[in-house]
Amino acid sequence: MPSYTAPTKDMQFLLHDVLKASELDVPGYEELEADFTSAVLEEAGKLASNVLVPLNATGDQQGVTLENGVVRTPDGFQDAFEQMKEGGWTALDCDPEYGGQGMPYLLGTAVGEIFVSANMAFNMYQGLTHGAYSAIHAHGSDDQKAKYLPKMVSCDWTGTMNLTEPHCGTDLGLMRTKAVPQDDGSYHITGQKIFISAGDHDLAENIIHLVLAKIPDGPAGIKGVSLFIVPKFMVNDDGTLGARNGVSVGKVEEKMGIHANATCVMNYDEATGFLVGDMHKGMRAMFTMMNEARMGVGLQGYSQAEAAFQNALAYANDRLQGRDVTGIKNPDGPADPLIVHPDIRRNLMDQKSFIEGARAFTFWGATLIDRAEKNKDTAADGLISLLTPVVKGFLSDKGFDMTIQAQQVYGGHGYIEEWGMSQFARDARIAMIYEGANGVQALDLVGRKLGADGGKHVMAFFDMIKTFASEHKGQDEALDRDFLNPLKAASKDLQSAGMFFMQSGMKDPNHALAGSYDFMHLFGHVCLGYMWARMAVAANEALAAGTSDVTFYETKLATGRYYMARQLPATIMHLRRIESGANTVMALDAANF
Amino acid sequence: MPSYTAPTKDMQFLLHDVLKASELDVPGYEELEADFTSAVLEEAGKLASNVLVPLNATGDQQGVTLENGVVRTPDGFQDAFEQMKEGGWTALDCDPEYGGQGMPYLLGTAVGEIFVSANMAFNMYQGLTHGAYSAIHAHGSDDQKAKYLPKMVSCDWTGTMNLTEPHCGTDLGLMRTKAVPQDDGSYHITGQKIFISAGDHDLAENIIHLVLAKIPDGPAGIKGVSLFIVPKFMVNDDGTLGARNGVSVGKVEEKMGIHANATCVMNYDEATGFLVGDMHKGMRAMFTMMNEARMGVGLQGYSQAEAAFQNALAYANDRLQGRDVTGIKNPDGPADPLIVHPDIRRNLMDQKSFIEGARAFTFWGATLIDRAEKNKDTAADGLISLLTPVVKGFLSDKGFDMTIQAQQVYGGHGYIEEWGMSQFARDARIAMIYEGANGVQALDLVGRKLGADGGKHVMAFFDMIKTFASEHKGQDEALDRDFLNPLKAASKDLQSAGMFFMQSGMKDPNHALAGSYDFMHLFGHVCLGYMWARMAVAANEALAAGTSDVTFYETKLATGRYYMARQLPATIMHLRRIESGANTVMALDAANF
Repeated sequence: MPSYTAPTKDMQFLLHDVLKASELDVPGYEELEADFTSAVLEEAGKLASNVLVPLNATGDQQGVTLENGVVRTPDGFQDAFEQMKEGGWTALDCDPEYGGQGMPYLLGTAVGEIFVSANMAFNMYQGLTHGAYSAIHAHGSDDQKAKYLPKMVSCDWTGTMNLTEPHCGTDLGLMRTKAVPQDDGSYHITGQKIFISAGDHDLAENIIHLVLAKIPDGPAGIKGVSLFIVPKFMVNDDGTLGARNGVSVGKVEEKMGIHANATCVMNYDEATGFLVGDMHKGMRAMFTMMNEARMGVGLQGYSQAEAAFQNALAYANDRLQGRDVTGIKNPDGPADPLIVHPDIRRNLMDQKSFIEGARAFTFWGATLIDRAEKNKDTAADGLISLLTPVVKGFLSDKGFDMTIQAQQVYGGHGYIEEWGMSQFARDARIAMIYEGANGVQALDLVGRKLGADGGKHVMAFFDMIKTFASEHKGQDEALDRDFLNPLKAASKDLQSAGMFFMQSGMKDPNHALAGSYDFMHLFGHVCLGYMWARMAVAANEALAAGTSDVTFYETKLATGRYYMARQLPATIMHLRRIESGANTVMALDAANF
Repeated sequence: MPSYTAPTKDMQFLLHDVLKASELDVPGYEELEADFTSAVLEEAGKLASNVLVPLNATGDQQGVTLENGVVRTPDGFQDAFEQMKEGGWTALDCDPEYGGQGMPYLLGTAVGEIFVSANMAFNMYQGLTHGAYSAIHAHGSDDQKAKYLPKMVSCDWTGTMNLTEPHCGTDLGLMRTKAVPQDDGSYHITGQKIFISAGDHDLAENIIHLVLAKIPDGPAGIKGVSLFIVPKFMVNDDGTLGARNGVSVGKVEEKMGIHANATCVMNYDEATGFLVGDMHKGMRAMFTMMNEARMGVGLQGYSQAEAAFQNALAYANDRLQGRDVTGIKNPDGPADPLIVHPDIRRNLMDQKSFIEGARAFTFWGATLIDRAEKNKDTAADGLISLLTPVVKGFLSDKGFDMTIQAQQVYGGHGYIEEWGMSQFARDARIAMIYEGANGVQALDLVGRKLGADGGKHVMAFFDMIKTFASEHKGQDEALDRDFLNPLKAASKDLQSAGMFFMQSGMKDPNHALAGSYDFMHLFGHVCLGYMWARMAVAANEALAAGTSDVTFYETKLATGRYYMARQLPATIMHLRRIESGANTVMALDAANF
């Protein structure tokens, strides 16, 4: 059975050495002192290791069941959910006005990683609730907030998001679910939604569905979509629960992974719904939820990789097989541990250098979100808006790849469900698909975000890299050689790709779109290269300051050198693919494939 | 439910336009006229589509069961196996002396692809039998051959290979299974073997286990391993079945995929075994079986990709979502089909160009095997020995990646078991692991095959590419630009990598081993680039000869251009990774990961 220990030391390094969170000019960050964040992360780590990890494999095996219209979660989930609520974890970064603890999103992100690594399917029940909370918080009326948010902050009630229908996922303009206005100001919602995560279950008294639907005679397509609150049980004015609403579970899907999360077909039959925000502006409101969800899905990708990596590393140290070609390392044993072999190290270092870079990228992204929200910083808002598809797409793709590599370390044992490595891969696979399949993320990045506000956010990104590199240039020969020069080269590849899109995309937008997926990966590598350069600077500072933990910081530098030397060169390949343009991509008639 | 149609047209193109099989100077190839191979492939395709495909999903869902020591295959497998036997398919490329049809391995490979694409788990029952047949055929005594082979050729009896034990997979020198000599010349085999594919089942009257074990007081480690025939039921001299032998199934493993194949723990308790070949030379005998199996596993990789691709393509043509940005393509529908979108095409072209290249590589490899065996051609033998780890490792890695990409085309529907795309990925995943995990293939390639016979086979490979390129240079500007020049550049990258290994590997073998995995992929890309160049030449010839099927050959050229422009540039990335050497890979102490 796999084990997991929260990487609190690495998180502390990011929060305090790299981001220097408590010194940042962001409201609330002054509380993020090292002792405080350490205590929070250690506590979260205990809950994760002791309560959530043991339920991960059993939850996968049992899955959820639908009987007589009632969805049951696996054994132990109810207890664990109560512990999560009692610890106040669901309220960590929520608004104190509704019972939240008001901590920065940054801290919520760190804690979230720990819970997701421990049990991704379990954590989705509260994760979706948080997304629904955010959408209502941003777009709901004061009455709606007062009525729903306190119970959602505590997770006495959970939330869902309902977008997809059988015939439409990405293209929501095709939506058929109807919302018919009633005399009392409410709506009757009728239609079928599919792939609804945590659509029904036995962990909460009530479920608050956020549902996209069309009000008759509104604008055609996506411009006629509105957002509604549809509670499972109606909520009386005094906060007590009333009658069952007209929403029911049609089916629970059999999936490749996240078996312990209930993925439901939801049938709405004249269910009572309440409009959130403006009529026909549902997509804007839903995007609040989706952007948060997309950051969270990127986090899921590398969090599954982290859990898988920890176990692959342990196996590589434990399993004796073959001998080190440069000299026996375990003379008293029948063979040396796997980790002596260069290709096993190549595999493990791929994982380690990706995961630590991804964590840095995600935490840094969380500071941008805090800054955008708490400082009303439009530059930070523009930058994270640009980077969100990169976080989602790149980290979920690579995160999945790394779970596959971790599984590979186990040889045949990796393929056997008993060892648990298959589950990490099967669970991680969904992150590439939901909240907008990664091809849609690439389209969002190249088709929308790149040119947003006249392209100023991507220019700001390049300026940031350039400024960083020139600020630190010449301080240290090794830093220049191992980090800054490779970063500049990779950033140049990204700029060349952007230039190619500008020039060729004018003639034919397909030249840009055909390269969008590679661009997303190229961008991701540059971001991780940037994070590694920042981590290297921080490690150098700690070493220069005479840290007592020399090994930690030197390991960090060595891991970063690996990323720069062995991962970052992927930028060249992506640039070549991009610069080959759309001709070979679009050459065939559909009939001739 | 997924469907599958055998790609007989593409196979015919390879057999006749590219390889010109019936004109080759290989005994038996004169029979491979186009009409004949077409009839065989069409027949195989019918059996695949009508019988094997419908059992693929049900087999995955039901899996195998072990009750009271008896393993049962899923519903319908017994019937299907009978049809496979009755059609003579199991005997296709076996020795006529033992009831085989004596067809070339090349034809067996083409037919094998069809059956594997249709139902990989099912086909393993006969696939393993074929491997065991080959090992006995090559190393068994005349008596053993007469006793076992006819029934194995017909698959009345099936075969297995028993290598792995709980504590050793790759490092078979650690083996504990014992073979104690008996007075009658037989041995008593005692020990436990794990991960035994088709270890037990209800498809055959008898199972012939090939088991590696150690005769006491023999040489230590791998040099003391011998190979034994251990029948499930003893075989009397008249060919009838006798008593049950001391071999039993301990357990059937729960796996990520290939659920319909019985992966067994086999317990040998003083089971009677018969030595195959020379004492202590078991590994040599087993390698006959493993090399064949490794070619077959590479084939499994791209065959699953083919099946997944066919369905992804159908879905991309069927599913309406979004609009072509360059102009509406389906004005009468609510949206355009997915295939209009450049990123969907990028995804599909990745799959198509890989699969067709992989098929060519595998078929060409099969001609080398035939040449090595039937012409006793040592150059061909050396070349295929060099390429076997590339076929196994590269095609299974990329084949799996392509099943993931195919699944991605379906969006959320790809993650739902109902649509069948998850199964292709879960089944394909094993090919990267068994018959030597792909890291071991890379080690075999760089540590053993590259330097074999003074490096002459890899030099012959480079000469072959060079000769091919210069023979066809200047005939056609587009051929030079789109195929020959990229091929030469990629081949140069491979040579540079080999040069780096030679120079740096002298100082420290880890420099070569740390780059072995990248080298295997780099090599694979050059092989596929070479195959695409050969296919382009063949397509040009057909077009110049005034073929009536212009569309087919132009599609072939367009697909090849895609591979050269968008896949082959991966060689640069792999070279960069290799040339960064072992330092960053080996930098960390195991304790500091």
